[in-house]
Formats: sequence, C-alpha cells, structure tokens
Amino acid sequence: MIIVLKRGTTQDQIDAFSQQFIDRGLTVNSWHGTHETVLGLLGDTSVIDIEYVQAQPIVYKVQRVQEPYKMANRKFHPDDTVITLPGGQTIGDGSLTLIAGPCSVETEDQICEVASRVKASGAQFLRGGAFKPRTSPYSFQGLGTTGLDLLKEARAKTGLPIVTEIMSVAHLDLFRDVDIIQVGARNMQNFELLKQLGKMDKPILLKRGLANTLEEFLMSAEYIMSGGNERVILCERGIRTFETFTRNTLDISAVPILKKLSHLPVVIDPSHAAGIPWLVEPLSMAAIAAGADGLIIEVHNNPAKALSDGAQCLTPDQFDALAKKLNTAHQALKAL
Amino acid sequence: MIIVLKRGTTQDQIDAFSQQFIDRGLTVNSWHGTHETVLGLLGDTSVIDIEYVQAQPIVYKVQRVQEPYKMANRKFHPDDTVITLPGGQTIGDGSLTLIAGPCSVETEDQICEVASRVKASGAQFLRGGAFKPRTSPYSFQGLGTTGLDLLKEARAKTGLPIVTEIMSVAHLDLFRDVDIIQVGARNMQNFELLKQLGKMDKPILLKRGLANTLEEFLMSAEYIMSGGNERVILCERGIRTFETFTRNTLDISAVPILKKLSHLPVVIDPSHAAGIPWLVEPLSMAAIAAGADGLIIEVHNNPAKALSDGAQCLTPDQFDALAKKLNTAHQALKAL
Amino acid sequence: MIIVLKRGTTQDQIDAFSQQFIDRGLTVNSWHGTHETVLGLLGDTSVIDIEYVQAQPIVYKVQRVQEPYKMANRKFHPDDTVITLPGGQTIGDGSLTLIAGPCSVETEDQICEVASRVKASGAQFLRGGAFKPRTSPYSFQGLGTTGLDLLKEARAKTGLPIVTEIMSVAHLDLFRDVDIIQVGARNMQNFELLKQLGKMDKPILLKRGLANTLEEFLMSAEYIMSGGNERVILCERGIRTFETFTRNTLDISAVPILKKLSHLPVVIDPSHAAGIPWLVEPLSMAAIAAGADGLIIEVHNNPAKALSDGAQCLTPDQFDALAKKLNTAHQALKAL
Amino acid sequence: MIIVLKRGTTQDQIDAFSQQFIDRGLTVNSWHGTHETVLGLLGDTSVIDIEYVQAQPIVYKVQRVQEPYKMANRKFHPDDTVITLPGGQTIGDGSLTLIAGPCSVETEDQICEVASRVKASGAQFLRGGAFKPRTSPYSFQGLGTTGLDLLKEARAKTGLPIVTEIMSVAHLDLFRDVDIIQVGARNMQNFELLKQLGKMDKPILLKRGLANTLEEFLMSAEYIMSGGNERVILCERGIRTFETFTRNTLDISAVPILKKLSHLPVVIDPSHAAGIPWLVEPLSMAAIAAGADGLIIEVHNNPAKALSDGAQCLTPDQFDALAKKLNTAHQALKAL
Repeated sequence: MIIVLKRGTTQDQIDAFSQQFIDRGLTVNSWHGTHETVLGLLGDTSVIDIEYVQAQPIVYKVQRVQEPYKMANRKFHPDDTVITLPGGQTIGDGSLTLIAGPCSVETEDQICEVASRVKASGAQFLRGGAFKPRTSPYSFQGLGTTGLDLLKEARAKTGLPIVTEIMSVAHLDLFRDVDIIQVGARNMQNFELLKQLGKMDKPILLKRGLANTLEEFLMSAEYIMSGGNERVILCERGIRTFETFTRNTLDISAVPILKKLSHLPVVIDPSHAAGIPWLVEPLSMAAIAAGADGLIIEVHNNPAKALSDGAQCLTPDQFDALAKKLNTAHQALKAL
Repeated sequence: MIIVLKRGTTQDQIDAFSQQFIDRGLTVNSWHGTHETVLGLLGDTSVIDIEYVQAQPIVYKVQRVQEPYKMANRKFHPDDTVITLPGGQTIGDGSLTLIAGPCSVETEDQICEVASRVKASGAQFLRGGAFKPRTSPYSFQGLGTTGLDLLKEARAKTGLPIVTEIMSVAHLDLFRDVDIIQVGARNMQNFELLKQLGKMDKPILLKRGLANTLEEFLMSAEYIMSGGNERVILCERGIRTFETFTRNTLDISAVPILKKLSHLPVVIDPSHAAGIPWLVEPLSMAAIAAGADGLIIEVHNNPAKALSDGAQCLTPDQFDALAKKLNTAHQALKAL
Repeated sequence: MIIVLKRGTTQDQIDAFSQQFIDRGLTVNSWHGTHETVLGLLGDTSVIDIEYVQAQPIVYKVQRVQEPYKMANRKFHPDDTVITLPGGQTIGDGSLTLIAGPCSVETEDQICEVASRVKASGAQFLRGGAFKPRTSPYSFQGLGTTGLDLLKEARAKTGLPIVTEIMSVAHLDLFRDVDIIQVGARNMQNFELLKQLGKMDKPILLKRGLANTLEEFLMSAEYIMSGGNERVILCERGIRTFETFTRNTLDISAVPILKKLSHLPVVIDPSHAAGIPWLVEPLSMAAIAAGADGLIIEVHNNPAKALSDGAQCLTPDQFDALAKKLNTAHQALKAL
Repeated sequence: MIIVLKRGTTQDQIDAFSQQFIDRGLTVNSWHGTHETVLGLLGDTSVIDIEYVQAQPIVYKVQRVQEPYKMANRKFHPDDTVITLPGGQTIGDGSLTLIAGPCSVETEDQICEVASRVKASGAQFLRGGAFKPRTSPYSFQGLGTTGLDLLKEARAKTGLPIVTEIMSVAHLDLFRDVDIIQVGARNMQNFELLKQLGKMDKPILLKRGLANTLEEFLMSAEYIMSGGNERVILCERGIRTFETFTRNTLDISAVPILKKLSHLPVVIDPSHAAGIPWLVEPLSMAAIAAGADGLIIEVHNNPAKALSDGAQCLTPDQFDALAKKLNTAHQALKAL
C-alpha cells in the first residue's frame, strides 16, 4: 500500500501515523520529495482498511499494490479449483459444463420435460427459479417451496443436480437439499446472506452484480470463502451500461481476467446478459473461446408461455442444436 | 401499453393474443400498417408483465405508456406524503430535515457526543450504523446489537429519533425500537427484505441502488407500500458512472424527477455521493436548491479515527456551520 | 413511429398535427383510449426528426418502430458488403482479415520491420498511426506527414495496404494515397469529417465512440454512406463503463448485433479495448467465435520503447503465434 | 509519479530505467519491499508519458501524484480567471452570467425576437447554432454561414455578444467575428480543432464530452491554453449513464470540483443535460447553489416549431420568469 501525504505534514505526524502500521506487523518505508512525502507499507496489507487510511487528515492519496482478497486469489492458490458433485459432475476441470433450464419453475410437466430434454442434449445440471427476484411486486414471484419440490422431482427423474437461487437468509433451511445454491446479481453484496452461505457445505454459484467491479465480485466470493466454504463458482451475466439494444452488456473480458486473478471456475450466463434469444449462440461461442468453464442457459418448453423472462429462452430443440455446436467448438478450441 | 407485432403475424394469431388481455379487463385497439400491426392496450396495464408480452414469438417491440407503479405514483396520490414522528419531527412538509451522525456507531462517548452536538446544530434525527455493509469481509462490520443499544442511549439523552440500516430479514426483531429503518443501496432490490418492511409500522428510508434507474427505485418503494407500509422516504446517494474523481456521481436531477413522479419525500446523502468532505457543502446547497426535503450527512467527532468511511465525515464544528448556512439558504429559497 | 399524445389534446390539435405528416406522404392512424390518444405513422419515417416530434406541446412520448438508418440497414441490403482492395485483400467475405502494426509510426526501421514481420505471420493489412489523438498536449502527437511517408515505404516494401487514422478535414489531401482511412473513436461524431469522407473513393474503417450506442454508430456510418461512399468497415474497440481493471470494456455483443442490423463488415480491436497485452489473445478468440470479420491488433518490435500505447502491444513473435492460432480457430469454427 | 515494478526486476534494470528520468531532470527515489520495488519520481512529471511508463516490461503499476495539466491548474494560477468581453460582459467574476437563445438559428425574425426577449430578461449573451451536430444525416444540419449572418444581425440589433458552435477546422475563418466560440461535447477531443482554437484571440466555451472524465476535460482545456489562448470557459452539460428518464445525467459535482482544480470559469447547460423543459429550473437553481458562474439556456419563441431540440426549449416568457428567480437566488446565496 502506497500512501501519499499532504504537503506540510510534519515528521512527528508521520512518525505517529507510521507507528500504528508497525504495531500491526507491517514495515513502513518513506521518501521525501520537494512537495510530497510518500509512505510504502510492506507486509500483509489486506488487514488494513483503505478507507480508514484515506480518512486521515494528513493523507492525500492511497493506493493498494496487493489485491485485497486472499482466499480467492490465484497468487496464494495457483491451482484451479475444481468443483465435483457427488454424482460426478464437475466444474472447472477443463471440460465444458452446461447448466440449463427454465427461468422459473412453473409446473411438474414443464420442469420435468425441460429437464429430460436438456439432459438428452448433454446438460450436466438443471437450473430453475423457485424464488424469483422481480422488479415489480405485481409480477409473478415464483412458486417458492413448491418450486423447490418440483425441482427435486425433476432431479429424481433425470439424475441432474439442481441449481436454484436463494433470495433470503430466512430460506436457508429450504435450500439444504439443493445441489448448487445460486446468489443472484441483486444479492451479490447482500453480505449477511454471503456470510451464512460461507457456513454451508454446498457449492455457491455467485453472480456478478449489475454494476460491480471484478474486484468487488472477488471480494464477495471472499466473504463466502472466509466463512469456510471455498466452493464458489463465479458467474458473469452482463453489466449495466449506456447501451440500450441489449438488456445488459456481457463483459467478456471478465472471463480471462477472473481466471488470471483467481483460481475459481468461471461460467457465463448469455441469456440474462443479452435478454435476446438470437444472441445466446454467439455469446456462448465467445464465452468458450475466451476460456469459460461453463454456461448457464435458459431453456423453456414453451417460451411464449413462460411466466418470467421468456423473451430470452431457447426451446429444447434450439438448445439441443446449440449444445452440439458448443461441445464441438470446445473440443476444437481445446486442441489448439 | 403499445405492442408492435412482427411482420407476417396472422389475424388469427392477433385475435388469440388479444383475447387474453380482453379477458383481464383491458381494451385492445389495433391498426394495420404496410409492414407492422400495432396493438394498444387500454386500462390498468400495471398488472401486465411486460417481459411476458416481450416473450411472445409474434411480438417485435413493446412499450409502456403508463408507469408500472401505482401506490408511489403522484397521479393517483396528488398530495405530498408527510411523515411525522411521535416526537413531532417531520419529513416532507416543506421544512428542511437534517439527519446527521457517524457512519458507524463506535462507542457510547462517540455517539452521545455526536448526537448532542448535531442536535445543538439543529439536526432533527440521529443517524448511525450498527450493521455495516462492507465490501471486504476483513473490514469492521459494525457493533451490531451493541451499536443499536448505544443509539438508543443517545436517543434517550438527546431526544433525537434514530435512523439506522438493516441488512437482513433475520434482524427484523432487533429493529422494532428503531425510529426510521434504513435500507442501503446494496439492498434496494433485496425484495424479500422489502416485503417484510412492508409489514412494519415504521418509516423506511430507502436508498437508491448504485446502478438502478429511477423507475426501479420507485418499484422498490412500491414493494414496501404494496405490503401496507406507505411511509417511505426516498434517498438519492449517488450512482455509479465512469467518473473516478468522486466515489459516485450525485444525480441531482433525481430530486425534481422523483418529486414530480411520486408524492414521497426525497432526501439526499451528499456524504456517500461524493466521498469527499469538501463536496458536502456545495452538494447540500444544490440539493436544497433542487427541492430536496432533507439531507443525511455524516458527522464524526474524530473523522481521522472513524472506523469506516471517515474520509467523508464532517466534524461537529463543520456541521454546525453547514447547518446554519443550509437553514438560511432554505428560508431564502423558499421565499422566492 | 408511434406517438402518444398528452391527456386533454383536442381533435383539432390532432388533425393539425397529423396533417403535416400526411403532407410528407405518410399515413397516420390513431386510436383513442380513456386517457391517451395514440398516433401511428406509417411509411418512410426516417425523414421525420424525432426530436421535432418530441418538442410538440401535445406530445407525451414518441418511439421509432423503424430504424433511422437506411443505407447501412440490412433490411434494405440483405447481402453482406464485401470490401476488396486493388491488391486482392478482402474484408467481409467470410475470411479472417488481420490488420496489424504499431500504434504510432516512429522510424523507417520500425515500421518496415514490423510490416515485414506481420506480413510473414499472415496479416493482410498494415496499420500505424501518423496523426495520433492524445489526451495530453504534452504527449507525442505522431510524426504527421513523415509518418504517412514511412507507411508508404513499408507498403512499397511489403505490398501490404495501409490503414491509418485521419484527425482533421484539413488533412484530407494527405490521405488520398492511403488504402483504408480510419476514423478514431473520438471522431465518430465529427460529422463534418464524416461528410467529407462520404465523398471519397476509399474504404473507411469507422471506430465506435467510447460512449456511443450501436444505433448512433450505424448513424455515423450512414453519414459516410449517404455521401456516396458505401465502403464502411465497422470497428468495435471497447466502451466506457464503471469497470477500472481494463481501459475499456469490449462489447462483444456488438459483433452479432451489427452483423444482424447491418450488411457492413465488423472488425474488433482487442488491443485498445483492453489496454493489456495478455488480454489480446482471449478477446481475439472471442471475437472470431462471435462472428467478427477481422481483427486490428497492435504489434511493435519493441513495445517498451513504443512512443504511445506500448502497454498494449504484442511483439512480432507474440503476434506470429497468435495469428497461427486465430487462423486455425477460424477454420475450425467455420466448419461447424 | 509512483511506479511499482514487477517482482523479479534486477538492480541493473532498475538503474537503466531510472537513468532516463534522471536525464530529464527528475529525481528518482526507490524502496525495496519483500516482493515489490517502488520508484518515486519527483519534479515536473507532466512531461512524462504515463502510457510509455506503463508499457515497460518491468512495470507493474504506475500512478500520477501530480495533475497532468498545468495551465488550467489552480495550483499554478490561484486567482480566478475572469473573462471580459469588449462590451463589458463578464464571466467568472462572481456575477451570474446568463447565455440564452435557440438551439438553432432559423430565421431573421426568430433570432432577433429571441435575442431582444432574452436581453430584456437580463441575458448577457445570445446563443444560437448555425452549424449543428446531428446524429442523423437526414436531420436539419443548421443554416451554416447564413445562420452566422443572422446571429450577427441579432447582435447588431441588441448589442448581445454571440456564442455559437464550431464543428470543423475548415470553418475557422467564418468564426473570426463570433464573440465566443463554442466547442460541442462531441468535439471535446477533436484535438486538431482544439489546437487551432489555441491560436485564436477569442474566448472558447468548451463543453464536456458525454463520457469524459473531469481530468480529460481539463486536458482538453490545456490543449487550447497551451496554444496561447488562455480564455477557456468550462461547460458541464450532462454525462451519459444508465439512467433513461433524462437524456443525460447532469454531474452537479463537476461545478465545485472544477472550481477547485482549476481557475477557469464554469457554466452549466441545464437544457441539454436534461432534455426536458420542466427540469431546466431546478437544475439551474442547483447549479447556482453549487457555485456555477453562469448558465446556458435554450429559449425559442416557438418551441413546437423548433427545427432541432425544441423538446428542451423554454419560451421567452418562461425564461423571463426563470431569469428573475435565478438572479434573486444568486443574490441571496451570495449574501450567505
């Protein structure tokens, strides 16, 4: 951490200020220019609160040199994290993981049909929303516990592990039999929820917030990991920009950057990023070419009747064609 | 709601599609151009899920004409909502409401001293964080229930009602004796929390999310109001943009727009919007000139020792000078 | 174009308002709801100024149904535009076009060495800046006409056509012997320059502005095309967002969207989008997978000595390895 | 300037790297941590190209401590710049400057009537566009030289100095008789134009680009000033964000920040920032309260017939009422 002090700071002030870092086991270097004095803190600065430092009246600017995340940091954990489910499904081992299913669970027929169809197309996981975050209180809010039960039925019939979103710490008990718990973009900084998920023995699929930086994203992963649960899957699903043609803007650079900064697996959600079904294929192709470990894709057996987000769903037939293409492309690109 | 259909849609498809809106009590008008057919839905379209409409294979574009919020909408509630506390404090009645206090509650001495100082300067409410949303799990997370107790002590000593942030539905019981419950920007779309707050008999100070539109902001207010709690205070606290000089960009236009679209009171948080103490005064002045009902300002008796966000705090002396200036300016501008 | 009128508009006002569109050859349909009257304009509405309509006191909202661009619109020009240079090089014909070279032309040795190296690696075009748009007046501004001369020398030696940026209408004559004229992101809405380029018989590589929507981008292409020059190449090079890890955020969705909306070729500039050399490869791979017609990549024989933007340059060896990989990937993906 | 070197950099590399800064008159300090070596450059670092430094293979991170602008920097020019016109009008002397007029000059009657009306209401300057930057080539592009002639006629009749926008270096000669030359947001980084304006003996009203940081804005002012023309007026006119209710988002913080960083006068354009006439008053009030030196406001004698941007125009009567209110408010706030 580098700290530029304001002009006119006295040596006594510098000494007093430096001492508190020395007391916490850090080394403090300094140099004195014509106008500024600059301090350099060496050691484990992740314990230092940068805002506390910024608040000091003698401080002009402060900048981290080290990343503020540790458990999610590839520097301290060079090997890729591979997440393996009891049924043998994997994420992060170099294979292409496909997670597919409807935005919302609606009926037994719907979820079971979609589940069997996406399984036949090669998906390893079934996704489906039981608790739905909706902008309007007047929109369909999901089937809740009934939706979770229907997901489990579909799992029983197909063997596909289920991925579904949690929206409240009050629902934690309901999710103990879910295979992968998803945290939605709007809850990426619901820190109380993250802390509780840190105590669970379940993989967590953490979606990036609409307007959160990659560093903030990794800090939210760090919340879960520092609680003891190191099985976090990072999911980029589009960020909010000025562009209005798409619902969000897929940040494709997030894939190689997250893979470099962190050892955690990275999946892409092309359905929510675009909100347009004909963009799902090219964005999925781009994601695997950029190095993503997997994709999470919305599939509905009747998109026009979908109770939420149908606009971006593929039909099972469309998903089948896409899955074939993606798997072939993944093999071809891996061989390069 | 106006729906543009895709080229090639047949009359049978149009009839079937229209019927479902007619069944819900709406009137459907249509016209047929050389290329497009356009439908106009008349009646209470807030019950229609725009994403459902968008998902229909025959739909090309859809646009709302009416706002999707009702209880927060000034059209249906022309008079300003005035929030009055049992102690007589008000928000939204044309007076200038000042809410002041530290980012975090730290010690009894700290919160009581700040409380008595800001009261002496004319603040009507004491703010202070007991549960703190922090980007890093390694940063100070607030004193929790102890912090709430210290706030109540400061209230007992000064008579100032307290405003403090809730971060989890699991903490609802702890907040029953808080005067105004704050929802932070990161939880603006924590819908499960909003639903629970809709059942409480407390004013809610709802902060706008970092990257949420004003319509989304009003929809979150609508979540609380549709649950039965109509006492919502809207708080603009800066949005995320490309500019890096300030932590966030204060959207000053939010004040007149929210006042026009909604009957709810609007306050501004200049401390978080900027993250820079010398910007608090000009932004506060701009806020009252633009018509804000109040301000929420961070004050700490020792900013350099603040455990969080000290960088943006004013000292009690600075706040005293500012409060005098703001009250004088408010009187002068009101007289115009 | 759909126009929602304000409540209380009289029939006389509607008639007078409608007449001016009828006079311009459009058909006007209308319907009357309980609160609103809606007009639908049918015919070629691209001649209607949407801001003029919005300004009418009786107008509440207005929305285009048709795109405002015509010559760039795939609806009116279904076949892909293929740009062919006299030397046989092509862009937009399904092959992968590689444009490579240094950010700035610096010396004869530099540009000739880079040119021969990138040609050997399979690049079909040489890029290099002679006039450089720099944020600071104190930064190196490019060699100007000397730089153009050096580019032509490198072209003479290698046979590679040259691509270089124009910054001013005052320089038009200097660019008559350039093969492809580039318009930089900062000049995407320098409309006087676009008009002049519309009169030239040269392909124009038009870069998207940092904060311009795709529709605005296509409208800038329309400026050039409506002047008579239909050979425009669209280049996505990253947009400005809140993310700070990369210099800009590559909008990968721009590739499939522009290819669908327009018939013009689309190339990606991964060097400027990221500003980080290790991101050039994954972003290039993503661009091809998403359907880009080509890539424009910065290569310098000594990045550490580059007088501008060296931070994002590849060495010729790195480019050689990348070009091989990209060509193989392009073949493999095309075969799917 | 602080430079963090990559791990593994050798002392020889450090020495060679440091020498080039020493050769340019700077002092280089260094310290060596367990992992990183940090260099501090002292002296006038504005001559150092930060991108060149970033490009060095041994460099990990680099950060400026000093601002890169000098002539626009208040540190080197503590007194406010006051711009005085031959007719005695001033900008930046503590008074409130009002610049008003139509978006586009359309007819002699229009511009002369608006000019006499806004003069009567207390405006000191007449604005009006002769060359108009329009997104679409099919929109009205302004009257060009005829428009300039009409502006001069209006000036002759009213005595109001004229402010109008230049769009091309090819038009420089046409602007020699204009009182203040405006550079529009889209041309803020048209560096060739800025350089030419730096040679003129005219005040330049420079608008901030839609997606440019305040530092980039000041660097564009520096382009003009470093050419010899120090009379630059900074104009904030809204930035592009995700919010869709307003055309742009007025960055009100820009006023106090620019006033602190620079000595140049700052004016606000509330008409373009919002694009909505009923927002012009509250945003103007906010601008004055935040410390703006002036306002530039669109006024048209018949907004519904305005050929461009009529949607945001005030009528002369509305402007008259607003000007009275603004002048009274300015007096009241100044007295605080």
